[in-house]
Amino acid sequence: MSDSTTHVPAVTLVRRPQGVPVVDDFAVREVQLGALEPGQVHVRVLDLSLDPYIRSLLDTGHMQDPATPLGGVLAGRSVSEVVDSRADSLAPGTLVIGETGWRAEAVVAAEDLEAITLPDDLPPSAALGALGMPGLTAYAAHVRHLAPREGDTVVVSSAVGGVGSVLGPLAKQAGARTVALVGSRRKAELAVETLGYDTAVVRSEEGWVEKLRAACPDRINAYVHMGDQQTLDGVMEQLAIGARVSLVGVMDQYNGEVPTRLRAGAVIAARATVHGMVVYDHADLAEEHVQTVAHLMRSGAIPLVEDRYRGLEEAPRAFCRLMSGDNVGKVVVEVAQRTTG
Amino acid sequence: MSDSTTHVPAVTLVRRPQGVPVVDDFAVREVQLGALEPGQVHVRVLDLSLDPYIRSLLDTGHMQDPATPLGGVLAGRSVSEVVDSRADSLAPGTLVIGETGWRAEAVVAAEDLEAITLPDDLPPSAALGALGMPGLTAYAAHVRHLAPREGDTVVVSSAVGGVGSVLGPLAKQAGARTVALVGSRRKAELAVETLGYDTAVVRSEEGWVEKLRAACPDRINAYVHMGDQQTLDGVMEQLAIGARVSLVGVMDQYNGEVPTRLRAGAVIAARATVHGMVVYDHADLAEEHVQTVAHLMRSGAIPLVEDRYRGLEEAPRAFCRLMSGDNVGKVVVEVAQRTTG
Repeated sequence: MSDSTTHVPAVTLVRRPQGVPVVDDFAVREVQLGALEPGQVHVRVLDLSLDPYIRSLLDTGHMQDPATPLGGVLAGRSVSEVVDSRADSLAPGTLVIGETGWRAEAVVAAEDLEAITLPDDLPPSAALGALGMPGLTAYAAHVRHLAPREGDTVVVSSAVGGVGSVLGPLAKQAGARTVALVGSRRKAELAVETLGYDTAVVRSEEGWVEKLRAACPDRINAYVHMGDQQTLDGVMEQLAIGARVSLVGVMDQYNGEVPTRLRAGAVIAARATVHGMVVYDHADLAEEHVQTVAHLMRSGAIPLVEDRYRGLEEAPRAFCRLMSGDNVGKVVVEVAQRTTG
Repeated sequence: MSDSTTHVPAVTLVRRPQGVPVVDDFAVREVQLGALEPGQVHVRVLDLSLDPYIRSLLDTGHMQDPATPLGGVLAGRSVSEVVDSRADSLAPGTLVIGETGWRAEAVVAAEDLEAITLPDDLPPSAALGALGMPGLTAYAAHVRHLAPREGDTVVVSSAVGGVGSVLGPLAKQAGARTVALVGSRRKAELAVETLGYDTAVVRSEEGWVEKLRAACPDRINAYVHMGDQQTLDGVMEQLAIGARVSLVGVMDQYNGEVPTRLRAGAVIAARATVHGMVVYDHADLAEEHVQTVAHLMRSGAIPLVEDRYRGLEEAPRAFCRLMSGDNVGKVVVEVAQRTTG
């Protein structure tokens, strides 16, 4: 199917952006696909995920990853379809997630890709969010940590993010009152109008703790935390007796900041149960997660919140919009449509 | 049974102690019992509990309680037996716990006493410890929070105290390796030799965190916390994956100190579950607790760790010894033996 002379369209870096990138920093051109070696697969990119971390690859590199060279193909993860394989683990037709870069097709080591199951009627990008790791995180936190009961008040931080946008609807479905904690008024609107939260509180606004108190007159039965110390403190003082807390993410994990800490007295006063969440521990829930969440997606209870662009050539514009901070929802570029299923 | 002319022996305050009390600060004399009014019971004191807080009543008062007046009867809690009753809630023969003072008999409001169940063959003082609230706290933390499995490593802080001296043996019985955290070498010895802990670490000694690490080569599966920030931090960094933590007591609850805090990243890294313990929530376990712990006391697995003195006239000497810091275990004065059962 591919040999060393095959070329495919890709987005490359023309010059290093100054501040917010502009479309002329990038160019679409044909690049070599490369020969398919043993242990590798040839994939066709379906949905490409654009994320803010890519920006840092354009100058300095990101964590362990080096900077993208001038003239090089931009890095990025996608949902792809295997079209040819020299690896036993991945047959042609398999859907996979992994680093392919911003290109129509790629040759990738099979061990760097993860095979996924995806219902035929849902877009591949769902595997990057609600049906992928963020969704499994939400599902596991819901089922194993928060276990909301009818009438409970459930507070979700980063409520419109990848985890929150699944957790809120799941809690609502279980009969809970859901309260979104978000970073802006625009996200508050999205939380209530699109994701179905009962109410939303902007955690960066003055007096937000009092607003949260007003939003939770019977205190907080369950809380999922992804955020900073102030957010955690504001919620912990308002826990109801027997509250459940799932710690999904703390800022200092990522940036080496001052460690986030929980006041032990608040845990005791509420007789709370606090759980640490690492999604890899809950792989046994994956099938149940996909079934349940796919069902809720079809019914509209869990909407796909994404900015979708069509065609690889749209990727630079989509990325520039993302980096100017104008997006809500996940930024996805649809490079091709699924042929199998 | 009693009228306004009945007198009973009691220990009274002769003069305010200077520093550590001496026996001549106290005197045994006959005091008036008082008439039995409606709503009150007449009790015979069996085992009197001597505790350090009593010292502060001898000068300034303790929390809400005023100082003992010169010539007045010393305050103290005891296990007593109801001998006459003008309260429907407490029939004669009932064993009770409550404030009676250091006296052979007392007339007390029924609502200030708590009825207890106690197996016939165990000393009444057990109801102040292993079969009372400290024991129920340990039992509930063991069953509902720590749930140790065969081979788990369980660390117990304040390991020879009222809660710890029951928790250690319970965890051991469940097949766990038990590690005591204690405040002195003498208590470390008691922990291992009398209470059956596998090993003990003195948490005030330099390098104790490394000693704890050496004592827990497979890390810590379950931890019960009663103590300060340093102790908590030292343990939290050594949790095993899936660890359970029961927060039974934190210092700042009592003294208005800097709030004890838990590092959220340590909870996440260990995928730990942290529980807040308030014993009143676990009253439903009381019967099961008494049965299980009484059985372990009879078998010797849970020893009664107490300094026992016989006769009310021994109370001043017992108290002086307690306040000089020489005791290990609960200080109990046996005032009378049980007649019912």
